[in-house]
Order: sequence, then structure tokens, then C-alpha cells
Amino acid sequence: MMKLKFVTTNKYKFAEVRKILPVEIEFSPLNPPEVQADSLEEVVDFELDYLTEKGYDNFFLEDSGLFIDSLKGFPGVYSSFVYKTIGCEGILKIMEGISSRKARFECCIGAVIRGKRYKIKGICIGKISYEMRGKGGFGFDPIFVPEGYDRTFAEMTTEEKNEISHRGRAFKKFRDLLLTIREDL
Amino acid sequence: MMKLKFVTTNKYKFAEVRKILPVEIEFSPLNPPEVQADSLEEVVDFELDYLTEKGYDNFFLEDSGLFIDSLKGFPGVYSSFVYKTIGCEGILKIMEGISSRKARFECCIGAVIRGKRYKIKGICIGKISYEMRGKGGFGFDPIFVPEGYDRTFAEMTTEEKNEISHRGRAFKKFRDLLLTIREDL
Repeated sequence: MMKLKFVTTNKYKFAEVRKILPVEIEFSPLNPPEVQADSLEEVVDFELDYLTEKGYDNFFLEDSGLFIDSLKGFPGVYSSFVYKTIGCEGILKIMEGISSRKARFECCIGAVIRGKRYKIKGICIGKISYEMRGKGGFGFDPIFVPEGYDRTFAEMTTEEKNEISHRGRAFKKFRDLLLTIREDL
Repeated sequence: MMKLKFVTTNKYKFAEVRKILPVEIEFSPLNPPEVQADSLEEVVDFELDYLTEKGYDNFFLEDSGLFIDSLKGFPGVYSSFVYKTIGCEGILKIMEGISSRKARFECCIGAVIRGKRYKIKGICIGKISYEMRGKGGFGFDPIFVPEGYDRTFAEMTTEEKNEISHRGRAFKKFRDLLLTIREDL
């Protein structure tokens, strides 16, 4: 089976994903422009367009975001910027006095394999905690409690988190896809 | 003098700008992709590239943002999204307990006139107020107090605000540029 390039600059994502996929993956720190958009799908499509126009093939990339219902989807596709600037503390401050804590993590994978484009989505429903908890994971993991659990993503091991997370779910679908198209690879 | 197209979907910006420029301007609600970037200049350059590649000429566009020092530049180039989601109230909540209120509004104009590219910047230094004040302006105007004043942008008339604002300053430079290159127009 061929090697696929994972286009990312985030080594945490790379570490999570390599535990899931049935193919060897290569860290490819290209940085295609990310467009300002309302949905991850639009961001991913734009990146795929950009890289295929440049002649790249046999790669995948991923974009994730935390969407908080009572904040109209904030921080959404800008989660990475919001994390780097105001962080978990900033989100908790905005959420002070807001009892509706529902949120979801979304992950959208885009892939181009032998010239064919694939897009895959994974979602994890949950809620924003009232304080930061846990040391694992990265980004907003310390303030996100997935539905049916009382621990945050940051209080779980990578394996536990992968089992239920948006990224885990999307990459399990991607794994199944790769197994299906195996003969072409 | 020729008519220039102002590429914007924001009628408030259009109304502010038409009071400053010495040429007739046309509302042009094109929506070129905005890239996720650290600076307004990068966002504007990307838009200019996109539109010139599509064959557009004789237009200008503008991108503005509020950069709060103690929040590492948040909301920055994503000010419009942040305004639409968490609004002024969200910013005030994040700033609770933070005594360092320094912030700046930046405006970057990009123009292509007879195939030539221009980029112009305007900055207005100030601070974040402790509460929303005023009904004028738009966006984060009710929480921004420009240096040397004790009123927010939203407590000023459009004329007063244009006198000192980031957008006013940038567009006055742009006006001077237009007067200089008048013979070419």
C-alpha cells in the first residue's frame, strides 16, 4: 500500500492519527492557505483546490473546530486562532453566567488519492465544563466534556479520546475508506 | 475622473468612505475569499491576487480589525466573525479583571487602479471601555475609546469618527493618493 502524506503542522494531530490509520503516513508540514468561512467543509475544499492546482496528489488534511451553540458557533473554524489568543480561560470567561453549555467538536478530513477527492466528517457532541480539567490532549480539550462522560477530553488517554472524538470518528471512517479502496493503492 | 468600485458587502463602511473620497464610488458587493492570516495586509493581498487573477481592475477594498494587546491581538483579522458571534458583550467579559485595556483599530486598503497595486494602512490607538456606550458606528465601536478622548467611537458622529479613526486615516491617505494620480484616471 502506498504512503499517504498527512498535510499538517500539528504534531499532536499527527500522533493521534497515526494510531488509527492502516497505512503508513508521512508528516508533511505544508501550509496551504485557509480561507475564512462558516464551515470546515469550505475551509477544507479551498485547501484541496489549492494543493491540487499545485499538482499535489496522495495526501490528506484535516480541519477541526469547537462550535458552541450559545455563542452562535464561536470559535468554530477559527478555533486555532482563538486558542492561541484567549485560550480556554477566555472561553470560560465568555461562558460565565451562561447555563446552556452545549457544544460540538467537528472534524473534516479532505483527501486526494490518485487524483480522486474525498471528504469525511466526524462530530462529537458534548458540553463546555465550568473549569479546566486534565493534562492530556491539546487545544480546548480541557474544557470539553463529551456526551455520556463526566471527564473532559484532557482527562482521557489518546486511545480513549480517539474512541469517541470527532477526529477519531472521522479517521475511523477514513480508515474504512482506505481499506475499501485498497486495491487501487 | 473615473469611477472606482468599492468591493465590500458592508453598507456602513460604504457610507463612511463615500464621505471621504474625491471620486465617485460604486458599491460592488463581490465577496473574494479572505484568508486566515496574522495581519490585515496578508488578507488584503490575497484578495487583490484573487480579483486581479479574475481580471478585475479599478477597484479597492478594505479590511479592518480590532487588536487588543492583552489578548495577543484578538480578535484581529477575525473581528467581523467575533463580532457576529460573541459581540461587544463577549469582549467585555473576556476583559473582566484585565486592567491593561490598550487596543488599536487597524485598517488596510488595497487598490488596483489601471493595473497598478496600492496598499495603505491607517491605525487608531485607544483602549477598551468597561461598558458599551453609544449608538453610532458599527461593530466594536461601542467599546473602543480612541486615545485623547473619553467617548467611544459609537458616541461620535460619522464625521468626528472619520477625523481620527483607522478607516478615516487610511482613506484620507487614499484620497491624497487619488489626487496625486488624478491625471492617470
